Amino acid sequence: MDKIDQSAKSKIVRNPNRSHYDKATLYKVLDAGFLCHVSYLFNGAPVIIPTAYARVDNMIYLHGALKNRMMICLLEQGQASIAVTHLDGMVLARSAFHHSFNYRSAVVFGTPVKVENAEEKEFVLKMITENILPDRWQEVRPPSEKELATTLVIGIEIEEASVKTRSGAPIDDDADYDLPIWAGELPLKQGYDQPISDSRLSQGIVIPESVKKSL
Amino acid sequence: MDKIDQSAKSKIVRNPNRSHYDKATLYKVLDAGFLCHVSYLFNGAPVIIPTAYARVDNMIYLHGALKNRMMICLLEQGQASIAVTHLDGMVLARSAFHHSFNYRSAVVFGTPVKVENAEEKEFVLKMITENILPDRWQEVRPPSEKELATTLVIGIEIEEASVKTRSGAPIDDDADYDLPIWAGELPLKQGYDQPISDSRLSQGIVIPESVKKSL
Repeated sequence: MDKIDQSAKSKIVRNPNRSHYDKATLYKVLDAGFLCHVSYLFNGAPVIIPTAYARVDNMIYLHGALKNRMMICLLEQGQASIAVTHLDGMVLARSAFHHSFNYRSAVVFGTPVKVENAEEKEFVLKMITENILPDRWQEVRPPSEKELATTLVIGIEIEEASVKTRSGAPIDDDADYDLPIWAGELPLKQGYDQPISDSRLSQGIVIPESVKKSL
Repeated sequence: MDKIDQSAKSKIVRNPNRSHYDKATLYKVLDAGFLCHVSYLFNGAPVIIPTAYARVDNMIYLHGALKNRMMICLLEQGQASIAVTHLDGMVLARSAFHHSFNYRSAVVFGTPVKVENAEEKEFVLKMITENILPDRWQEVRPPSEKELATTLVIGIEIEEASVKTRSGAPIDDDADYDLPIWAGELPLKQGYDQPISDSRLSQGIVIPESVKKSL
């Protein structure tokens, strides 16, 4: 299995039995999402911002406006920390203490680089859009040269990462299993509600395939 | 309206029309969630970790094991950045460029302090549990003295914050409204699936009120 490099920064200390350091598991967690949280420094203090992303090979790509402070800071600082978190459910134990979540969580570290080439930029924007809603890209007006020029795209090569997951039933203290208290899992589900067509839609335009497939 | 203090760190530059700086809006966004992302420094580099939280008055509380690295770093560094993000839907425009999300996002900055008092600690743990699943606390075995002693609880007074929200239809370029392309919103919904009772449950124990009410 293709292992991910590790340092003290990305080593999981708490519940090490829940940790994974192989690329296959990491990529699976990253590919299951499209919204990440990114941390950068501002005047020496950490700041977090949520943003869309896509993974391609061993890179994570982000985009924003040309003057996007987060992205400019990331490029200047030459380091990025990116978290992708999936909450799968509540773990309800007999004791307050052993309550937990079922989850899949990835934290990635790497060096941000600017994507300069217009063709590569457009490819990355397509990947980000497709990661959010598959097949949407082919339905819409592609970016103009001017739109591409006003978009900042950065790629972060995954240099270090850690993945932590939990699944399954609660684990109580032995003595607590006899208590007359319900315990179990409460799975979370996410999905889409019915789409709302734009009020300015031209007549005769139906819900497209990308949206239909997501429902 | 009770305003939140602002500095360059928390000032929203991009799309300032989507920004809010009043406590009422901030508290509403914070109270709608129970999972946050926290950023801290490790060897000078920012690291992000997802964790549970509760807001009480102007404080955000976190908990973890006594040796939890994130919480120890937060206390040592005397600063925390915490993000709470709700994704409400996709905004699907006629152009790739104007695709967006509908969301409610809060980023909070403050100074972490350790909660030392056992009674206050238990109160905070109750608040965190109740924030995840209301009325669960009264159903379970409360923490023992030993469990309280092995739990680290910190409070972060909200000193600065910014809130950014978007809702409603896509906004396309004027020229694009005539294109034969579907545009609109695809709302996201979150909920719970049917609970899974623990296989070691004693006989005759039914699904509790806390879980029933959440379904």
